[in-house]
Amino acid sequence: MTYRLYYWPEIPGRGEFVRLALEEAGAEYVDVARTPAKKGGGVPAILRVLEGELGGLLPFAPPVLIDPEGELVIAQTACILDHLASRHRALAGGGDHPRRVAALQLQLTIADLVTETHDTHHPIAVERHYEEQKAEAARRTASFVRQRAPKFLGYFEDVLARGGGEHLVGDRFSYVELSLAHVLDGLAYAFPRAFVSWRASIPGLLALRDRAWARPRIAEYLASPRRIAFSEMGIFRHYPELDRVA
Amino acid sequence: MTYRLYYWPEIPGRGEFVRLALEEAGAEYVDVARTPAKKGGGVPAILRVLEGELGGLLPFAPPVLIDPEGELVIAQTACILDHLASRHRALAGGGDHPRRVAALQLQLTIADLVTETHDTHHPIAVERHYEEQKAEAARRTASFVRQRAPKFLGYFEDVLARGGGEHLVGDRFSYVELSLAHVLDGLAYAFPRAFVSWRASIPGLLALRDRAWARPRIAEYLASPRRIAFSEMGIFRHYPELDRVA
Repeated sequence: MTYRLYYWPEIPGRGEFVRLALEEAGAEYVDVARTPAKKGGGVPAILRVLEGELGGLLPFAPPVLIDPEGELVIAQTACILDHLASRHRALAGGGDHPRRVAALQLQLTIADLVTETHDTHHPIAVERHYEEQKAEAARRTASFVRQRAPKFLGYFEDVLARGGGEHLVGDRFSYVELSLAHVLDGLAYAFPRAFVSWRASIPGLLALRDRAWARPRIAEYLASPRRIAFSEMGIFRHYPELDRVA
Repeated sequence: MTYRLYYWPEIPGRGEFVRLALEEAGAEYVDVARTPAKKGGGVPAILRVLEGELGGLLPFAPPVLIDPEGELVIAQTACILDHLASRHRALAGGGDHPRRVAALQLQLTIADLVTETHDTHHPIAVERHYEEQKAEAARRTASFVRQRAPKFLGYFEDVLARGGGEHLVGDRFSYVELSLAHVLDGLAYAFPRAFVSWRASIPGLLALRDRAWARPRIAEYLASPRRIAFSEMGIFRHYPELDRVA
């Protein structure tokens, strides 16, 4: 049984949350758009999925995961992760209902943070270039750096502390830890100066990230060519003019 | 068994998606913040929940639902709805796994549309007033009216058409239909002129909304004092200067 993941091939983006979960689960998967277009991959493969060629529920946007078991076509990152946790129960601390609910809830809050991060460089129109909305981006980022990012990060630090400091969902590992580790890396890439001012208040999260990246399958993945670097095409973009001390 | 819903008492907001599902399920619930503060309700009740007084997983923001069965404390609208569908299976077409996945996926895309609608009047900073970001709001709304809203609405019209025109999730009713009906009402309230230009391309969705609002429990709810009107405090706000023909 091999999963098929459809996501833009040149950025970590929202697909990265799915890749991390698949890697942690040791699941077999093909990252379809990173295979040659001549062989049915590349961006054209994504466009065919968005046109509904695979059947099933029409996706609005990538990432899209095909689970051959049940022939499910699943979009929306958090929905894909919740489904993977139903198949690979160690991804959500054993996978019982309360833990899956908790993991989904936290992942959705991460998704909100990701959207707000994206909107720092695209506050006006997703279909226009950053250069066409730079002034507004500077204003939005000022709010993000001072208000929103600290609020989200402080929330996750609180959740971790209330649970004893080791895990976010009960007393066990969950995919949420990988997602949050990735977001921390993304924020550190995009806003290195601001990140310095956030660090002091999130010691628990920084340690959680270290533990996440040390997990054997994840460490192997991060060192592999399957891992895509951050760049100014993705969600987490480093524009020095936006980065400021909080 | 009585659910307890915690949400801002004066706006439909994101809480409305939960209210609609609870009403459709015929579930007993208390809308806690709409009961008197003297009796443990009002906004102070919400603030206590956000401080973690109820135990369980700390919520980031309302809505929060307490399910006394299992003492679950659940935040994030889509997560609450998915949980309700696990308890009241008719809310997701019988509630089998593929239908719940499909409903969650669609609800998350509705959530994205709701966030983008909110950001039309708050593109820069959620903690500042609309009046402090009017120029940016006008630019963002221009993109929303011409690009984003038609893209989302067209997507849901396509999903409906591909499924035969009656339902969004397979061949049965789901909570997603109530959510989408509410969003259509909200968009018509916020952008009446733009809505006229969108109408022609969404005949299926308009009929779906009529069917949703005619469901017996929902019709009774809409006519009751439990239903809160739209206003310029919520997600869907009518600012005439933002409303334009697409």
